[in-house]
Amino acid sequence: MQAFMDKDFLLSTETARRLYHEAAADCKIIDYHCHLNPQEIWEDRRYENITQVWLGGDHYKWRLMRCAGVEEKYITGDASDKEKFLKWAAVLGKAIGNPLYHWSHLELQRFFGIDTPLNARTAEQIWEETRAKLADPAFSARNLIVRSNVETLCTTDDPVDDLHFHEQLAADKSFPVNVLPAWRPDKAMNIEKDTWMAYVEKLSEVSGVKIGSFADMKKALKARMDFFAAHGCTLSDHALNYVMYAPASESEVEAIFAARIKGRGISGEEEAKFKFAFMAFVAGEYVRRGWAMQLHYGCRRDNNQTMFDRLGPDTGYDCINNYAPSEQTAAFLGYLEKQGALPRTILYSLNPNDNQAIDTICGCFQSSEAVSKIQHGSAWWFNDHFQGMTDQLTSLANLGYLAGFVGMLTDSRSFLSYPRHEYFRRILCRLLGEWVEDGRYPADFETLSEIVRGICCENAKEWFGFKAKQI
Amino acid sequence: MQAFMDKDFLLSTETARRLYHEAAADCKIIDYHCHLNPQEIWEDRRYENITQVWLGGDHYKWRLMRCAGVEEKYITGDASDKEKFLKWAAVLGKAIGNPLYHWSHLELQRFFGIDTPLNARTAEQIWEETRAKLADPAFSARNLIVRSNVETLCTTDDPVDDLHFHEQLAADKSFPVNVLPAWRPDKAMNIEKDTWMAYVEKLSEVSGVKIGSFADMKKALKARMDFFAAHGCTLSDHALNYVMYAPASESEVEAIFAARIKGRGISGEEEAKFKFAFMAFVAGEYVRRGWAMQLHYGCRRDNNQTMFDRLGPDTGYDCINNYAPSEQTAAFLGYLEKQGALPRTILYSLNPNDNQAIDTICGCFQSSEAVSKIQHGSAWWFNDHFQGMTDQLTSLANLGYLAGFVGMLTDSRSFLSYPRHEYFRRILCRLLGEWVEDGRYPADFETLSEIVRGICCENAKEWFGFKAKQI
Amino acid sequence: MQAFMDKDFLLSTETARRLYHEAAADCKIIDYHCHLNPQEIWEDRRYENITQVWLGGDHYKWRLMRCAGVEEKYITGDASDKEKFLKWAAVLGKAIGNPLYHWSHLELQRFFGIDTPLNARTAEQIWEETRAKLADPAFSARNLIVRSNVETLCTTDDPVDDLHFHEQLAADKSFPVNVLPAWRPDKAMNIEKDTWMAYVEKLSEVSGVKIGSFADMKKALKARMDFFAAHGCTLSDHALNYVMYAPASESEVEAIFAARIKGRGISGEEEAKFKFAFMAFVAGEYVRRGWAMQLHYGCRRDNNQTMFDRLGPDTGYDCINNYAPSEQTAAFLGYLEKQGALPRTILYSLNPNDNQAIDTICGCFQSSEAVSKIQHGSAWWFNDHFQGMTDQLTSLANLGYLAGFVGMLTDSRSFLSYPRHEYFRRILCRLLGEWVEDGRYPADFETLSEIVRGICCENAKEWFGFKAKQI
Repeated sequence: MQAFMDKDFLLSTETARRLYHEAAADCKIIDYHCHLNPQEIWEDRRYENITQVWLGGDHYKWRLMRCAGVEEKYITGDASDKEKFLKWAAVLGKAIGNPLYHWSHLELQRFFGIDTPLNARTAEQIWEETRAKLADPAFSARNLIVRSNVETLCTTDDPVDDLHFHEQLAADKSFPVNVLPAWRPDKAMNIEKDTWMAYVEKLSEVSGVKIGSFADMKKALKARMDFFAAHGCTLSDHALNYVMYAPASESEVEAIFAARIKGRGISGEEEAKFKFAFMAFVAGEYVRRGWAMQLHYGCRRDNNQTMFDRLGPDTGYDCINNYAPSEQTAAFLGYLEKQGALPRTILYSLNPNDNQAIDTICGCFQSSEAVSKIQHGSAWWFNDHFQGMTDQLTSLANLGYLAGFVGMLTDSRSFLSYPRHEYFRRILCRLLGEWVEDGRYPADFETLSEIVRGICCENAKEWFGFKAKQI
Repeated sequence: MQAFMDKDFLLSTETARRLYHEAAADCKIIDYHCHLNPQEIWEDRRYENITQVWLGGDHYKWRLMRCAGVEEKYITGDASDKEKFLKWAAVLGKAIGNPLYHWSHLELQRFFGIDTPLNARTAEQIWEETRAKLADPAFSARNLIVRSNVETLCTTDDPVDDLHFHEQLAADKSFPVNVLPAWRPDKAMNIEKDTWMAYVEKLSEVSGVKIGSFADMKKALKARMDFFAAHGCTLSDHALNYVMYAPASESEVEAIFAARIKGRGISGEEEAKFKFAFMAFVAGEYVRRGWAMQLHYGCRRDNNQTMFDRLGPDTGYDCINNYAPSEQTAAFLGYLEKQGALPRTILYSLNPNDNQAIDTICGCFQSSEAVSKIQHGSAWWFNDHFQGMTDQLTSLANLGYLAGFVGMLTDSRSFLSYPRHEYFRRILCRLLGEWVEDGRYPADFETLSEIVRGICCENAKEWFGFKAKQI
Repeated sequence: MQAFMDKDFLLSTETARRLYHEAAADCKIIDYHCHLNPQEIWEDRRYENITQVWLGGDHYKWRLMRCAGVEEKYITGDASDKEKFLKWAAVLGKAIGNPLYHWSHLELQRFFGIDTPLNARTAEQIWEETRAKLADPAFSARNLIVRSNVETLCTTDDPVDDLHFHEQLAADKSFPVNVLPAWRPDKAMNIEKDTWMAYVEKLSEVSGVKIGSFADMKKALKARMDFFAAHGCTLSDHALNYVMYAPASESEVEAIFAARIKGRGISGEEEAKFKFAFMAFVAGEYVRRGWAMQLHYGCRRDNNQTMFDRLGPDTGYDCINNYAPSEQTAAFLGYLEKQGALPRTILYSLNPNDNQAIDTICGCFQSSEAVSKIQHGSAWWFNDHFQGMTDQLTSLANLGYLAGFVGMLTDSRSFLSYPRHEYFRRILCRLLGEWVEDGRYPADFETLSEIVRGICCENAKEWFGFKAKQI
């Protein structure tokens, strides 16, 4: 029997233990996709208590509390921070099998040095202990990042953002971590939304390009890409319903744009055509700039209207959308490839059933431009648990070249979330260890270490072209 | 090497063994979904031989025999009971990996005290032994239920049923088990079927409401719900092709109804609109009455026309339907939620690929009305085997709150089927045991016991609001 | 810790070891589906070096090299054989978790007696060693087949093939292996392709039936089926996008044929109708002739236009197509069954998510004509790895009758590919061994051996009706 979450947590074989402790553990973190607020990094945000850190904005935790029947008052409502924490502790204490159980305990162990399992009985004591520790400057936003051994992190930014805090952070030689912007132009693409017209105006204003047509929008976006590039951006991110293939003529796309900009509604088909044209355009620009493209899909958002009206988006009301025709994904990439417009790309689906289809699609568009130019992204959001990561890694290894994988990201809004990289690394080492000790791969520690360090850190640096911050 | 199906069957760790034997084994059975015939309970049915019990109506077993190439004569045909049993024994003896292998042997062990593996060589002896034992009153329908430690069971009943036997069973203080009706109005909803018009007439007659419109049908259904409620019904069950979202105006729905009642055919779109309106209506009524709603989907029925013509429905010719757009499932629940018409709900898909989508949908509609108000139903029908149950439990734990799960049901027509609860409990304890002994959850026996007893029995009582029969 | 790929490779239990070594290992190979070139068998092809054997036409290996970022020059380009091998060795050496790692090492071990792991460091030595050995006549095409213990193999042949080499091989008493043709009429069915009209002319010519209508085409195909039957053919193979159900009247199908034969384009719906009619026709003919029908689907081919233009089809640019409505698959088989036109059938999907749906569909159409008349085909192409095979076997066991399974096929173009049968057998024995040692099935070695030998060899002989070659 393995002790509860001790130093060999998840490391079920001697090979796994050696790989993790000797090869993985000290790798720098390259967190190429997160949702940290650059202003909070710049201002070096502090927290009074663990409720602020943990329950302030983490819709994963809110969701679990709701599943356990907790009243909203204790989740996002007006209960006190302490009351909320006590509710959370009671729920977490029984959340066997949920990744939040592991993440939360890794955070308690790594940042607070607390090994006690959190539950209704230990909640009071842990509340006090964490509160005391949070007063220490070691728990400021920047120090949490530095203590986590992060070399580079990429935030998620809108084309209209001024990147003011990125600029200041870059200039601040006292902070040894690269904080780079990532380009996420969803609002410009989501033509079907009621907020699109207002967004186009905003984009007009910020870019200085008057936007009356799709051609104008392209000009504006290119201007903003140049601005982002000047601030160190080298990657983009897109949230899609699914990766669509819906080619249309330039004039047809302009007609859709023209109608919509006047406030007319558009059909599902028109939406697909516009989005396809949009994606084809930006992909070409990414190639030109050497940027990578991340495509996230398989999510249906804001399913609970009542709660959306009350709390807004990203509050725990999203689900897996299982419509993701691999035929269109392949056709989209094939179209780009044919145009010379296929950048280095990462495909992430929220539906774990898409793993194998994705891996086989990736295999159709590789090239010598990069090791694994087309990547199957890390198990994401609803999948970033033991089973989900194991499945993604296994599928990638079965159908592609695991050794070329760019590895884990936090996708998180929290400064405490870096142990998710540790979690991933342990799962990776466990899987490789099992294979080796089952006689499926030689016990060649040197090569195994190279593979592990590649996946944990080196591949991402190489693939994205990141360099450590010069200080 | 673990001995074959002994007392520690499937209990691969010390934690699992302790959890099963000390926490799970003596839990009462709450079988909230089965297809037992209340008349057979009332009349306390007896059997002459094991073929009558096992092969009389169990299409799972028929199906396996057909897969093994057995002639229909020995399955549903005119071969003697003994001949049929000998064929069955020969097939089962080689059915490694099939859940029927485990269910059948658990039934032999628990009810007949027979530990010998059944196969062609042992068939004669087991035929005789079981025949002798079936003569004992301990093998009557009621005694089988009582010996199985059942507290409550819910049958599956049509709105036009008179619930006569439920009434008599309720009044019979000598029988200590709750036998409750469950409301299954599929025939009223299935407007596309040729038998629908005749069914509407029947419903008219039984309810005393002349049905000329959908509004009338609603009245009739409400009257029958009141009747069911008066007989202790607190839950409904629906077999859907998929959970559809197809809103239409009241007048449009009435027009569909009006046309169809005259015998006109309807389109697939009209069918979806009617069914959506039907489901939205009954869901609202369930909320009003505090009933729960079970939605089963992902099944394509009666695929073999030749055999359907010969044997009718539910004879082993159904398959998984893999069309179940999560988008529509989420939209349907979202619609109900917005109307205040979302009851406690259980979602079951026959397609195991839907596990993760279902768990994420559930998470969008939870509330403090109940712990896990929206449930991911137990691995069902084609999935109620080791792998299927393990996958369902794992997905639920990863994405939701396993500790709130209402657990297992038999879904069975057989009085011998209760060991499926034992099978489920062993699989549950095995899974938790593996997690604990792998260091993924503390070896906190008290909390683990509480979780196990919740899932095996207490959660269902609480969630459905069942009470033990007063005798 | 299990030693790397030794004699007990993958055999994790004592039961597995005994089953493999005593029951499975010496079974004859019945390779009922491969893509070997009969001319190369007839001419007893020889190889100068391992690059010719391994990288001459194996798009699985090409694909992996591309995933690892190797330049095309070293894959299909003009680099020397040795340079290509060195690149391949470097990639393979780090391809942990990929089935090519196991296949390649099994081939090195079984044919060349080389136990050294292949990687960048060992490549030179293995290059020389294999080159020396390939000079030995034991490495001719025929000797590789004979050394692999093959009893029967079926190639894949077009209706217009003259089967010249099959005829000569059949007459050659010095070669003890059955080499049978298999009927693959995809080109006649693929009416949407630009090459269809030319193909119909070719078919006209070869069959001696002037083809002006679908009725004529049927006549021509029947003539060619007779010809194939006379050459020992007893099975067919079809590559479908998905198994479609699209019934249309005879006149409608003729109209589609008539339009298309004149070069007119056809709609997706017309394509489906023609293909459905085509499949219904051939299925009926198969029943008449006692042939089996293989249906492969779930593949999207030739996704990379640039590389297709350069290298043609079957060069590593295919992916999983996840559109495969089980509803239509079931309806198609149901339609055939109703017409008395359902032959023994094997269903293979490239999408592993279809496993369970397929197993439940199979169960709807079994009969006493054969044990498991409708088969769930072996894990195929992208799935023929440890995980994919384990999943297919588990699903089949859970939902059907594993003991009736016809087992593995190579689906390969290489004379070295037979160790894939060994790989399959080891995985099968491992799975059964785990179940037995977990107490889930009795340790009844006799029955287990019978099951294993059935799946490895005997079932296929029986189900296809193959006999050993008379020499």
